[in-house]
Amino acid sequence: MDKIVECVPNFSEGRRPEVIKKIAAAASRFKKVKVLDMEWDRDHNRSLITLVGDPKQMLDAVFRMIRTATRLIDMEKHQGEHPRIGATDVVPFIPISGITMDQCIRMSKTLGRWVARELKIPVYLYEAAATRSSRVNLADVRKGQYEGLKEEIKANPQRKPDFGPSKLHSTAGAIVIGARKFLIAYNVNLDSKNVQIAKEIAKKVREKDGGFPAVKAMGFEIKDKGYVQVSMNLCDFEKTNMAEVFEKIQEEAKKKRIKVINSEIYGLVPLAALVDLVQKTLQSPDFKKTQILETKIWE
Amino acid sequence: MDKIVECVPNFSEGRRPEVIKKIAAAASRFKKVKVLDMEWDRDHNRSLITLVGDPKQMLDAVFRMIRTATRLIDMEKHQGEHPRIGATDVVPFIPISGITMDQCIRMSKTLGRWVARELKIPVYLYEAAATRSSRVNLADVRKGQYEGLKEEIKANPQRKPDFGPSKLHSTAGAIVIGARKFLIAYNVNLDSKNVQIAKEIAKKVREKDGGFPAVKAMGFEIKDKGYVQVSMNLCDFEKTNMAEVFEKIQEEAKKKRIKVINSEIYGLVPLAALVDLVQKTLQSPDFKKTQILETKIWE
Repeated sequence: MDKIVECVPNFSEGRRPEVIKKIAAAASRFKKVKVLDMEWDRDHNRSLITLVGDPKQMLDAVFRMIRTATRLIDMEKHQGEHPRIGATDVVPFIPISGITMDQCIRMSKTLGRWVARELKIPVYLYEAAATRSSRVNLADVRKGQYEGLKEEIKANPQRKPDFGPSKLHSTAGAIVIGARKFLIAYNVNLDSKNVQIAKEIAKKVREKDGGFPAVKAMGFEIKDKGYVQVSMNLCDFEKTNMAEVFEKIQEEAKKKRIKVINSEIYGLVPLAALVDLVQKTLQSPDFKKTQILETKIWE
Repeated sequence: MDKIVECVPNFSEGRRPEVIKKIAAAASRFKKVKVLDMEWDRDHNRSLITLVGDPKQMLDAVFRMIRTATRLIDMEKHQGEHPRIGATDVVPFIPISGITMDQCIRMSKTLGRWVARELKIPVYLYEAAATRSSRVNLADVRKGQYEGLKEEIKANPQRKPDFGPSKLHSTAGAIVIGARKFLIAYNVNLDSKNVQIAKEIAKKVREKDGGFPAVKAMGFEIKDKGYVQVSMNLCDFEKTNMAEVFEKIQEEAKKKRIKVINSEIYGLVPLAALVDLVQKTLQSPDFKKTQILETKIWE
C-alpha cells in the first residue's frame, strides 16, 4: 500500500456501543481500509473512529459509515457535553504517506458532494478544505450547535453550507468535512511540583505567544506522579518537530534549574515525522524513507 | 511479516553476471525472502547479495544459493584481489526485527551443519557465532586464504572447521558462517580541505582510540566535492547511535572552527535504529515501534 490516508470521523454517539460498532462495521468490508482505533465517551456522548488506508477505498468506507450513522443516530434526541451539529459531526482527512494535502482537500469535496446528493445532509468544508476564512476553525463552523444552526442555516446566508440544502437533515443535522495535517501529541515532563514553571515554559514554545510555528502548548500538574508537564500538540511536524521543542524546553528548564525527567510521544506518529526528525537532527536532508530497511519488505 | 532477518552472502564470483544471477535466482522462489540488492566487482572477483525476510525461509533460500555457487564456481581457478576461502565465502545473519542475536547464532549453526552434511564443505563459525575467540574476526578465519588453508586445514588442529571435513571441498573450498549486528554506514562532511582535521576527529570518535563503543571511523578527503569527511561504521547502534557521534563531531569541529556541512546515512538502516535514535534524542525510553502509524498497516 503506497498511498495512505487517515480519517477520524467523529459521531454523536457515546452511550450505545452497539451503534458505534455498527458504524465501524460499515467500513470493515473494505480490505484496504483498517480500523485502527475506536473510542467513545458517555459524558460527551460522542465517539471517534480512526481509520487508515487506501484513499479510494477510504471514501467508500467513510460514506457507508456516514450512511449508517444517519440511520441510527437522531440528533433531535441527542444530548452531550461536547459541541456538535450532526450525527456524523466531523470528518477530517489526514495525509500520511504518498498523498498530498491537496489530494485530501479533493477527497473532502468529493465526499461532501456525495453526502449532500445521496443523503440530503448539508456539508461544511473546514480547515485546509475551507472555502472561506470564517470556516477554517471548527468552533466557528459549529457555532450555535445543532439546535442553533437549525434556524440559522435557513435565515443567515453566512451559514449556507458548501454542499447540500440550506436546511438541516431532520435527524442527522449537518456534517463538517475537511483536511488537516497529522497532529502529534507530545509531552515533556519536568522534575518540579510547581505548575507555574510548566505554564511559563509552555508559553515560550507555543506559537500563540511567539514560540514555534504550529505548536500548541499548556502547562499541567501531573499530581499522581508528582511532577509537572508541558503538554503539546505539534500541528505540523514539518514546521516544528519534537527534537526542536524538546531542546528548547530543556534549555528553558536549565535556566530555571529544573531537570527534564523524560518526554512522551502520545499515541501514533507517521513514519514521515521520524524521517523528518532524523533529517534535521543529523543535518541529513537527503535521508529518505526508502532507506529504512522495513519499507523494502512492506512496500 | 513480524520476524525479519537479513543475510548478505558473499560469493567468489564478480566477472560472470550470469552466474551471480543464477545464484540469486536460487533464492527467488521463496515468497517470504526478498533479494534487496546485488553488487559485484570485477577486480575483487566477488559479489554480495543482500536478502531480507522470514528466518525459516531464509535458511532454505541461502542453502540453495550455496548449493548453486558450489556447482558453478571453481576455487581452483579463482583469482581476485579480495581475500577469500570459498565459492560461497562468508554468510552473515543479521537480526532486523522480531529476532534476537541468539536466534541468528542458532541459524548459523543450523545452516553450517546442513552445508557440511549435504555438500561436504567445511564450515567455520565467526563473529557472534564463533566457538572460540580466535575465530571472531573474519580476517583470522580467512588467514592464508583458499590456497593456504588447503594444506593447513589438514595439518593444523587449530584450523579444524566447526562442521564438516578437515579438508577443503575440491572446488568450493570452505565457508565462514556467522551472526553479527546491523552495520550503519554514516558519514559527516566537514567544510575544510585539510584531511588531517577529518583524521583527528575520526580518532576522537572511534572505539579503538578511546571514543564511542562499536564505532569505527576514518578521515578522508572527498576531492571532487572539495571537503573532508569523517566516515564511520556504527557496528551496534544500540551502543552508539548517529545522533551521538554527530553531536560529538560537531563539537570537535567547532573547537577547530570548522563547519559541519551535513551528514549522510549510506544505504539502509533498520527501523529499530530510528526508534533508538528517537528514544535517546528525546529522552523518551518508552517510545515504541508500534507507535509508528505505518506499522499498523504493514503488520
